Amino acid sequence: MAVKEGERILLVDPDGKNFLIRVEKDKEISTHRGVINLGNVVGKEYGDFALTHNERGKFYIIKPSVNDFMMKVKRKTQIIYPKDAALIVMWLGLEEGSRVIEIGSGSGSLTIALANAVGERGKIYSYERRKDFMENAIKNVENSGLIDRVEFKVREAHEGFDEKEVDAVFIDLPSPWDALDPAVKALRGGGRLGVLSPTCNQIETMAVKMEERGFIEISSFELLVRYMLPRKGMTRPFERMVGHTGYLLFGIKINPEFDL
Amino acid sequence: MAVKEGERILLVDPDGKNFLIRVEKDKEISTHRGVINLGNVVGKEYGDFALTHNERGKFYIIKPSVNDFMMKVKRKTQIIYPKDAALIVMWLGLEEGSRVIEIGSGSGSLTIALANAVGERGKIYSYERRKDFMENAIKNVENSGLIDRVEFKVREAHEGFDEKEVDAVFIDLPSPWDALDPAVKALRGGGRLGVLSPTCNQIETMAVKMEERGFIEISSFELLVRYMLPRKGMTRPFERMVGHTGYLLFGIKINPEFDL
Amino acid sequence: MAVKEGERILLVDPDGKNFLIRVEKDKEISTHRGVINLGNVVGKEYGDFALTHNERGKFYIIKPSVNDFMMKVKRKTQIIYPKDAALIVMWLGLEEGSRVIEIGSGSGSLTIALANAVGERGKIYSYERRKDFMENAIKNVENSGLIDRVEFKVREAHEGFDEKEVDAVFIDLPSPWDALDPAVKALRGGGRLGVLSPTCNQIETMAVKMEERGFIEISSFELLVRYMLPRKGMTRPFERMVGHTGYLLFGIKINPEFDL
Amino acid sequence: MAVKEGERILLVDPDGKNFLIRVEKDKEISTHRGVINLGNVVGKEYGDFALTHNERGKFYIIKPSVNDFMMKVKRKTQIIYPKDAALIVMWLGLEEGSRVIEIGSGSGSLTIALANAVGERGKIYSYERRKDFMENAIKNVENSGLIDRVEFKVREAHEGFDEKEVDAVFIDLPSPWDALDPAVKALRGGGRLGVLSPTCNQIETMAVKMEERGFIEISSFELLVRYMLPRKGMTRPFERMVGHTGYLLFGIKINPEFDL
Repeated sequence: MAVKEGERILLVDPDGKNFLIRVEKDKEISTHRGVINLGNVVGKEYGDFALTHNERGKFYIIKPSVNDFMMKVKRKTQIIYPKDAALIVMWLGLEEGSRVIEIGSGSGSLTIALANAVGERGKIYSYERRKDFMENAIKNVENSGLIDRVEFKVREAHEGFDEKEVDAVFIDLPSPWDALDPAVKALRGGGRLGVLSPTCNQIETMAVKMEERGFIEISSFELLVRYMLPRKGMTRPFERMVGHTGYLLFGIKINPEFDL
Repeated sequence: MAVKEGERILLVDPDGKNFLIRVEKDKEISTHRGVINLGNVVGKEYGDFALTHNERGKFYIIKPSVNDFMMKVKRKTQIIYPKDAALIVMWLGLEEGSRVIEIGSGSGSLTIALANAVGERGKIYSYERRKDFMENAIKNVENSGLIDRVEFKVREAHEGFDEKEVDAVFIDLPSPWDALDPAVKALRGGGRLGVLSPTCNQIETMAVKMEERGFIEISSFELLVRYMLPRKGMTRPFERMVGHTGYLLFGIKINPEFDL
Repeated sequence: MAVKEGERILLVDPDGKNFLIRVEKDKEISTHRGVINLGNVVGKEYGDFALTHNERGKFYIIKPSVNDFMMKVKRKTQIIYPKDAALIVMWLGLEEGSRVIEIGSGSGSLTIALANAVGERGKIYSYERRKDFMENAIKNVENSGLIDRVEFKVREAHEGFDEKEVDAVFIDLPSPWDALDPAVKALRGGGRLGVLSPTCNQIETMAVKMEERGFIEISSFELLVRYMLPRKGMTRPFERMVGHTGYLLFGIKINPEFDL
Repeated sequence: MAVKEGERILLVDPDGKNFLIRVEKDKEISTHRGVINLGNVVGKEYGDFALTHNERGKFYIIKPSVNDFMMKVKRKTQIIYPKDAALIVMWLGLEEGSRVIEIGSGSGSLTIALANAVGERGKIYSYERRKDFMENAIKNVENSGLIDRVEFKVREAHEGFDEKEVDAVFIDLPSPWDALDPAVKALRGGGRLGVLSPTCNQIETMAVKMEERGFIEISSFELLVRYMLPRKGMTRPFERMVGHTGYLLFGIKINPEFDL
């Protein structure tokens, strides 16, 4: 599979440093090991390497994954990390063609993961209160090549959403309960609601409100990723780890028994 | 969205017990709370409930997610759990259209997650040494409705694979290194290799061999999911948790500099 | 070191099952492997084994540790486990001769650890609201041989304590703040206060109140013990683990600047 | 309890920065907030504060705990942390009067915890291969005021120990098995052996050897301490945590059935 102009590639230094960049014929990229002429990269195979002008730097050319796009977003907010995004995609039950509302676009890292999961036939409706955040998120999603699957809207959560019968709603807001009623209205019967919150207090309040609203299968957890150092005769966990990103909370909407 | 004959539904008891079943007009299902006539379920909306014949049991009708299909596979082996599968999908960089080799179909739970992630245009090639395991895995994947995306083959890992230029390979074998050379041959440049192993020793041996084979971005970790009990004024983690499923190990294949 | 009559011994089955028992000449103990005559144990060395009457059972004779005494208390309440007790002893700064108030004797398991840590010259004042719990705790501490170091009192926390200038106070109550003012009065300047609570809400409320009361070095944490299965070529963590016992909270009392 | 000349005190800045220092009348200590004349501290009560010369700094005077002494050792090696030391003391079953061999004094942090746990009547025999490490460890233990309970010896582990019938042995060496035979000889029947090792491989090898030597109740685990941030309405775990210090391994020596 050869690199074409216009594609995004990941240039990976053997030391682990890497660059996510769009290939253009006349562009150069300056690294700590020298300059790479991106014109020379066109036509190479993925998995090949490119040398810097001084031949001191050797960078492997990799097709970026959704994980890479997420980690490379320009951050104007705290981002949702791939480990949490992976479980969000799984617990929301996303599949090709799913329609999902995201409330709180932030920097767009979760948006990328959601858009990747629903495929070309799916759609993400991403709401964000702050115009400057949204504009940054749009650029980040464009950069991942998935912008056609996402519709961004500037709006406060409590104002409600335009969509009906969506398969899933994800809320990343300081007061997730502000979006609960609009989420219930937008979700189809049996649709899944997810929330990420950093504090015990937020998931407690939100879980209680979800229970009052009749959600079933309410479940909350957090995820600890523990990196290992596998080395010959000396395998052990890393000495430092991320201790907390946030608590996840999920539930399934059921239909009201009587019209309210 | 109304339930149609032939669809798989999840019937969820408010106490959390649930049944995954295919809707057929003349079928009945016996639960601990009484009998449900599945004919009565046809035409109901997802999110509605069905009553048992004695009206003592009330079961919500939910569209099952990939998570549900995985947890409900008929097990002939230790299965890969949704939490690990979610990170495997993310770290392998899967997207609509990806082509993936899985070595060790087991009971097919990961196969379901992989098939869900690659969409209709993608393909999973799932190799399994034991015919009885494969037959069970096939039934489980059929039950999830994703069988069209999966090709099963009975074969030992060291015999090699038929596919070329696949995007990702996942190995779940007691001796994952038996599949390393075949995996390298099948992967495209920049393709991703993933491994799940229960012991420190296995990931150590495999990581060393992957490094020798030139893989870059080698990374290993395990995942701890910690369930919370969010209750008004009394929020705390669960008292018991799963302490270990396995270590995950990933790397990216680069192209050999010279033909070997 | 030979076993003497009246001593407590631990009889350990090679399979890990064990019995904590007081050695008396005419006593027998019935195990799943047969009967052991305790008279035969007198005079044996610690580390030797005793056989059952039918010679089918072989039990090693071990001098019990504080850990064993704690795990073998007769439980009328949830107990504090050795892992938490070990950190409580460390974070309270206990040493030979320390004087400590414990509020909430429960079943006396922590009492045993505290009494062990302060030595013969130290003293534990253990307060318990319920007479039946206290009587059970007394028996448990007697059984550990440390009763001379402990003074038990039946009293509600808010009624206050008789002691002054104690080195440390530990609170294990559903409403730990009920004991805060009495604790401040009883502690010496620079004395340490510790709390164990199962929920986020309790440590939040208590930490805020301790801060208002001028405590310094306030610190809260929980402890996860992850058991390993070290086996030749197959080392890995256990599949199940204890996910939560409680949150610990500590602080140091400083003297008020003005008399209040 | 008033501060006397010659005592070690902890001076604690409200921001958490602290200094461990010996009180001498004519000494001054320079802090980031100004100079404190230690002569002025004599006669104050523990829990009072001392002001810097410019009155801009306010430091609380605290009696240091074993935890403080451990964290303040001058480090020439990786140290054993209080959390691990606390569990080592508990799992070795230490009590007033215990006699313990430590192999690998390192910087003496564990030595301090062991010496604190065995009281005035106990004894720690601390072996260290490197004279420079031992001299540093001696200074650190002197500084904690517990030097009378410790005997240091420069020696390689495989050369064996002078003591017999000790209650416990703790090994902190890169090749803990070098000390296994000497440990078995020095331990009393039913005595406890403990090991700390950073890698899976070390505990695996050592556990297998302990089993071959007949040790019972072999148990291995690691300890994760997760700090919490309890704040009004916003309680959550810290974002960063220590992911790994080492694996602990324990077992109980039984007597050989026949003279070897």
